[in-house]
Amino acid sequence: MKSPIERYLEELHQTFSKEKSGTVASYIPELFKANPEWFGICLVTTDGHVYEVGDTRQNFTIQSISKALVYGMALEDNGRAEVLRKVGVEPTGDAFNSISLHPQTGQPANPMINAGAIATTGLVEGKTSRQKINRILNAMSRYVGRSLGIDQEVYRSESETGHRNRAIAHLLRNFNIIESDPEPALDAYFQQCSISITCRDLGIMAATLANAGLNPVTRDRAVVADYVENILAVMGSCGMYNYAGEWIYKIGMPAKSGVGGGILAVLPGQLGIGIFSPPLDELGNSVRGIKVCEELSHQLDLHMFRSNSNVSSVIRKYFDASAVTSNRLRHSKESSLIQKHGKCIRVYELQGPLIFSTTEVIIRELTVSGPQSRCAILDFKRSLSIDESSCELLLKAWRNFHAQNHCLLFSNSSHLTLLSRYFRVNLKETELPDFRMTEDLDYALEWAENDLLSTLAPDQVTEAAIPPEGMALMQGMENGDLKAISLLLKPRSYQKDARIIEVGEPSEEIFFLSQGAVSVVVQRPNGKDYRLATFSPGMSFGEMGVIDQAKRSAIIQADTEVKCLILSKKDFDQLDHTHPQLKIKLLKNLALEFSRNLRKANQEVLVLSE
Amino acid sequence: MKSPIERYLEELHQTFSKEKSGTVASYIPELFKANPEWFGICLVTTDGHVYEVGDTRQNFTIQSISKALVYGMALEDNGRAEVLRKVGVEPTGDAFNSISLHPQTGQPANPMINAGAIATTGLVEGKTSRQKINRILNAMSRYVGRSLGIDQEVYRSESETGHRNRAIAHLLRNFNIIESDPEPALDAYFQQCSISITCRDLGIMAATLANAGLNPVTRDRAVVADYVENILAVMGSCGMYNYAGEWIYKIGMPAKSGVGGGILAVLPGQLGIGIFSPPLDELGNSVRGIKVCEELSHQLDLHMFRSNSNVSSVIRKYFDASAVTSNRLRHSKESSLIQKHGKCIRVYELQGPLIFSTTEVIIRELTVSGPQSRCAILDFKRSLSIDESSCELLLKAWRNFHAQNHCLLFSNSSHLTLLSRYFRVNLKETELPDFRMTEDLDYALEWAENDLLSTLAPDQVTEAAIPPEGMALMQGMENGDLKAISLLLKPRSYQKDARIIEVGEPSEEIFFLSQGAVSVVVQRPNGKDYRLATFSPGMSFGEMGVIDQAKRSAIIQADTEVKCLILSKKDFDQLDHTHPQLKIKLLKNLALEFSRNLRKANQEVLVLSE
Repeated sequence: MKSPIERYLEELHQTFSKEKSGTVASYIPELFKANPEWFGICLVTTDGHVYEVGDTRQNFTIQSISKALVYGMALEDNGRAEVLRKVGVEPTGDAFNSISLHPQTGQPANPMINAGAIATTGLVEGKTSRQKINRILNAMSRYVGRSLGIDQEVYRSESETGHRNRAIAHLLRNFNIIESDPEPALDAYFQQCSISITCRDLGIMAATLANAGLNPVTRDRAVVADYVENILAVMGSCGMYNYAGEWIYKIGMPAKSGVGGGILAVLPGQLGIGIFSPPLDELGNSVRGIKVCEELSHQLDLHMFRSNSNVSSVIRKYFDASAVTSNRLRHSKESSLIQKHGKCIRVYELQGPLIFSTTEVIIRELTVSGPQSRCAILDFKRSLSIDESSCELLLKAWRNFHAQNHCLLFSNSSHLTLLSRYFRVNLKETELPDFRMTEDLDYALEWAENDLLSTLAPDQVTEAAIPPEGMALMQGMENGDLKAISLLLKPRSYQKDARIIEVGEPSEEIFFLSQGAVSVVVQRPNGKDYRLATFSPGMSFGEMGVIDQAKRSAIIQADTEVKCLILSKKDFDQLDHTHPQLKIKLLKNLALEFSRNLRKANQEVLVLSE
Repeated sequence: MKSPIERYLEELHQTFSKEKSGTVASYIPELFKANPEWFGICLVTTDGHVYEVGDTRQNFTIQSISKALVYGMALEDNGRAEVLRKVGVEPTGDAFNSISLHPQTGQPANPMINAGAIATTGLVEGKTSRQKINRILNAMSRYVGRSLGIDQEVYRSESETGHRNRAIAHLLRNFNIIESDPEPALDAYFQQCSISITCRDLGIMAATLANAGLNPVTRDRAVVADYVENILAVMGSCGMYNYAGEWIYKIGMPAKSGVGGGILAVLPGQLGIGIFSPPLDELGNSVRGIKVCEELSHQLDLHMFRSNSNVSSVIRKYFDASAVTSNRLRHSKESSLIQKHGKCIRVYELQGPLIFSTTEVIIRELTVSGPQSRCAILDFKRSLSIDESSCELLLKAWRNFHAQNHCLLFSNSSHLTLLSRYFRVNLKETELPDFRMTEDLDYALEWAENDLLSTLAPDQVTEAAIPPEGMALMQGMENGDLKAISLLLKPRSYQKDARIIEVGEPSEEIFFLSQGAVSVVVQRPNGKDYRLATFSPGMSFGEMGVIDQAKRSAIIQADTEVKCLILSKKDFDQLDHTHPQLKIKLLKNLALEFSRNLRKANQEVLVLSE
């Protein structure tokens, strides 16, 4: 099948190929050599999928688009405060080559006009022009995921004819915005404008900015994440020369254009766009570039001031332990205690990025339900990112719970390294022992259930081995029957961690658990082990395979030292004829057990598919 | 429990109360009466929760903040093109009261400077000043959810001293930007600036803009959603006077301030902020307002150019019919066919807003997996919104499937009215019959399974009544047993839609289904009916209650005309003694059936909790 998005971009390309207005830049002869028919569209997602149509592999020079990226490098090399001291961030309403220096301080109004850009290049690490341009080329190459070079002819031409820029450089020197010889900055600036790129490169650069500075194709970092918002801010307010206001109004994405015919546009968190078409309008922006972006923004609803709130869906699923319990199988008395009192164990499965506005929804819920929650569990499996402000709010919520002797538990949070680090750094030593994170939601639930039971039924836990008459499947049996079946049961012991049942074995035995705990472990579709159930003494396992004569479908392993009583399939079958009433009793108990488990599973399917 | 967010805002309020710099506006005596200590912070979420601290109920005049809102009204009353013809959208770099008219056309540079704002008020519906201000007051009242009025003293004072604004109005008349007497526009402008609001109002206004024009507290529409992005764009590029660039750089939210001491800031889709504190800096912005917003943006990571990509989680869950099937219970032959070939029925549960960048992920998946998918089901239950570009992409994907005789099915999409409308309008008459939307995912799965079985096992469907020996629970019985049990079975018929079992009844009967279909219906936690299972002829139901002696826990109803054979609990119990071998057989079959259902349910829990 052909992707409808690819087809849409092809149609767009075809439509706007007919647009013939605009003029190729001619202030240096090399730029004027560009073929006005060249036209490429490239759209790159933040997970690294590249859509490209037309002349996306044609080389051209980056020109002013470099200003935005080099601004990021200046921030990396000097920090925000120092850069802001030298170059402002206010739009001027003037043309790109206007001088716009502050009359007293000489500070250029912003880094997107030539004066600001030369000052910015001056701030990039390196004393010589070569050091500076190497720094710039290295970073740019990470942005695009390939090694970039300089178009030497364009560079020579820019350098030879750049009288105005040379004048600007000396004015900057005069005001001490550039603090030493301005020539290296100026020369590096001419070179950075002459870096040869393609439309595909532009798209990937844009997607790298959309992806918080991480190249989504190579997964290399091109720029420190914290500075991306600053780069995008100056693009947003000053990126499109004196068309910036109209651009944000109509297209609504931070963008930067160059007189080589390129436009780079960024929809933060979502996608990057690169367009290449040399003919320019009178403001110096690519004519087709603007039209294509207008069309894309309109047709694909890309305007970033459109609100697509996803805030309230941060709580993906909510349930309490009266409806869904852990996979620790409990005896009926414990089960009914949990069912009766389980509403005070509240589970919230979260999803999506945890930022202030999503975390706020969680905090609000915890604040309201907190007093009724003996234990609240936040499951982070589906939340792939968290920011510091959310960590701080969760810490405060945790303290609220802790102060009331309630418990706020985290599960599946190990991928959110910031979260656990934040807690470990900020919790007091006296608080740390009460901070609990579990690997899986199931274990968090089990912990909370045990905690609840420790209050409700402190005397339930028994360490002694269960005799045959204490087994669930033997309930209601008379003494004679009990004696008869006891003769068939063979004791067997297992070490902790031993495999009791392996997948694929024939199902030849029913196990009655007298002491210890065993777990059924299956592989999830994603390949990870998952505890399907943990059995307590008095329960039996392995009977399903004996009944439906299927091979063993899951691993059963000993969680502790384990003692079992074994009934072989052969003996089980022979009971039909030797002790039919005993067998009927056994089968009824079995059906009862299955029925109980089936009701629990159906209930869980219902809650989980809600 | 106290919300940590509330506590955080209180701390913020306390900290910045100590900030004493800035001067209360003094160009008219009424503004200078403001108490410099007044200080309110209000934060409102897009689901209408209001956090407020300090003097959030103190009245003050809205001043220039009105410019942004009135701009939206001008757009509603004239359309975008006409408004853009009269007033530009470029930042000027000049002060708020600069005249900044285009030298040839007289067009004001943007609607946030006084000249642009007076021109904008001129565009608002109404010939007289009274008509205009009524239109403005009505709309503003919807923004805040209460009836607003004008501070008459401020208005009189503004009007008496507004010589510069009067000059501007006449210049606008001179250039025909205002096409008739400028006095009504000017007078309405003075009045709009004198509207009396509170900090709480500001917060709700901001949240209304963040919520695409819908007041999140009252659920009233304040402005057409399509224009919100334009209002926010002019706020973003020109809203903070000549501090706009630095504001977007540091704080990263579209905002507007007024000399009354208010600041309104908007994080689209997420939240609105209102701050009130009268002392202003030399650019005319509230000193505390800027500091609080800087702190909020930094502490809560609110900068809108930060990327919080949530794109790839649009596919909330994926499975195929080899792992999870519909609740239509099938005989084992059909079941194993579905298990074997079910990989070609692919289910995608979606979540979050469907916008281009999320829908792109779906389209890409469908394009790759399409050739292997006999049927793909998109479930929209967790997607609360869709935009037109996503509808168009889904239409194209649907056509790709249709062209290959594959099927793309939608379930749970009835709340996305745009989607079904879009398909009904754009599908050809020949395509329409093949377009399928089902109410529940379960029915879509059943349809796809039936469609698959119609190819794999076209002869499976039987209409004749199943005799006792055809029942699943009778399998393996000898003739004598069959005769014995047949004598106990009583036939019973039901009309379509009849309730066969009601919740709470005692469990006295086992039902063997000979003809027709019955469904188990339960109530979901959300109160909606849900089909837990549909039985086919040859299956039995009602046996779980007989086994565990519980009352009936779900409704069972006849989907068609139904014929059953009934075995009473009494007869079932007596078999223990009258026909023990028959009873053993029956119990084994029962255990087998339970075990099969339990395996299916466990498998589903595993997939659903993935």
